[in-house]
Amino acid sequence: MRPGPRALAVSQDRLAEKTFLSGLGLATAPFRTVPNLEALGPALAEIGRPAVLKTLRFGYDGKGQAMIREGSDVPELHRGLGGGPMILEGFVAFDCEASVVAARSVEGAIVAYDLCENEHDRHILARTHVPARVAPGVEAAAKAIAAEAIEALDYVGVLALELFVARDAAGEPRLLVNELAPRVHNSGHWTIEGAQTSQFEQHIRAIAGWPLGSPARRGRIEMANLIGDEAEEWRDILAQPDHSLHLYGKLETRPGRKMGHVTRVFAEPPRGV
Amino acid sequence: MRPGPRALAVSQDRLAEKTFLSGLGLATAPFRTVPNLEALGPALAEIGRPAVLKTLRFGYDGKGQAMIREGSDVPELHRGLGGGPMILEGFVAFDCEASVVAARSVEGAIVAYDLCENEHDRHILARTHVPARVAPGVEAAAKAIAAEAIEALDYVGVLALELFVARDAAGEPRLLVNELAPRVHNSGHWTIEGAQTSQFEQHIRAIAGWPLGSPARRGRIEMANLIGDEAEEWRDILAQPDHSLHLYGKLETRPGRKMGHVTRVFAEPPRGV
Repeated sequence: MRPGPRALAVSQDRLAEKTFLSGLGLATAPFRTVPNLEALGPALAEIGRPAVLKTLRFGYDGKGQAMIREGSDVPELHRGLGGGPMILEGFVAFDCEASVVAARSVEGAIVAYDLCENEHDRHILARTHVPARVAPGVEAAAKAIAAEAIEALDYVGVLALELFVARDAAGEPRLLVNELAPRVHNSGHWTIEGAQTSQFEQHIRAIAGWPLGSPARRGRIEMANLIGDEAEEWRDILAQPDHSLHLYGKLETRPGRKMGHVTRVFAEPPRGV
Repeated sequence: MRPGPRALAVSQDRLAEKTFLSGLGLATAPFRTVPNLEALGPALAEIGRPAVLKTLRFGYDGKGQAMIREGSDVPELHRGLGGGPMILEGFVAFDCEASVVAARSVEGAIVAYDLCENEHDRHILARTHVPARVAPGVEAAAKAIAAEAIEALDYVGVLALELFVARDAAGEPRLLVNELAPRVHNSGHWTIEGAQTSQFEQHIRAIAGWPLGSPARRGRIEMANLIGDEAEEWRDILAQPDHSLHLYGKLETRPGRKMGHVTRVFAEPPRGV
């Protein structure tokens, strides 16, 4: 089975995920386990506010989580998330969010696409920029973290590692791992037009036991999701010569629903020039 | 119905096609109609040898045609092609073969991809190069011919115009129209990776009544067909970082059968630099 059951076990449970990442020595937001409401008070005292309370499973696009601020009704928030076992995470004041989309072959070869800088709007990915506008060294460090995680999972296929680019006490860039997505990822959709090998082809190459393809980028990338009724602009988008439009064929438009995306690839000077 | 019945009527019958092209004042190889074997002698006397005898319908990849040289057994060649009504064409000594893949929208907008230079091997397209290595002015002239033909057909969709790049008596380049293909074309397969809009998306845009996409090219193109057992090299091709492989999923490999193709896009300096 590829990518393999371990990746699923680790990534579908936020506690297993954080434990796995910490076990690799990778930095994450501080966290505490919260088996029940009684445990939440002491955890909150340790983590401080603001903090983010999250269910262990079934979270995406901001679902299954709630911010606890000064004055929040904590029992009510806990109840609103279903009242089961949860995880409490410290809030990270980050400069930006980023992701590494990487692939590992059956033979263990690893390739990563360039670092994606991701802008979210109400917890939903709105725009991805590549290259990410980060300090020198941050991209290489992020790719190294992704390689470490994909290797430790003995993963085969495409995986995305979501990161916060924050700062340490001295103001230097510091990477915190947010979560693992054991699959092709929204922040990698630009690879269809923008890379030598798309993340979708890359995943098939990996799980079929074929050689991985080149992740070389064709230019500077801007990818914008079409959320809810933004997709109704499709005809205007089609008329823009440098916009590559993708609609997902969802029959119903709902607020906050990802209906499609648009990729733009801009010429940039060759590297080293 | 799009592209429309006229394009089909014209392009599926070699006599109708030649008559249509000549009617537009476009240059083609000299030709004569050959309703039966008796008419072939006089036609051959007028056209001269070598000449190419072709059935009126169902010809592709060199099928349905035969070269008549000095000493050829003409009645035998005529019989071998089925003995029905045919067309006799003068043999054109060309510098190269080329094609224009163009699209026309419901509103009548026309866009053309850059001129494709096509190398054939035993009548089957082997390689396409873009830009075509032709004299200045030839590409613009070819696109103008394609626009004239697509307009005259009131065509909607993607069409390919196949051309011979020959020379006139003074040695200047001269374009002769070979045939019309009322569809996406093998010589345009490079547009999947090599153009802002692929010929397949372009065709859908056209027939759906959407705005046409940009045909802008992403670099210098080399496309090679995989004929017969050439497709068995697929694993080596996949391991080349700049090769984009397409296999058509045909279950049986036969000599001369198009099994797939490989596209390479090379960086080239921006125009005007």
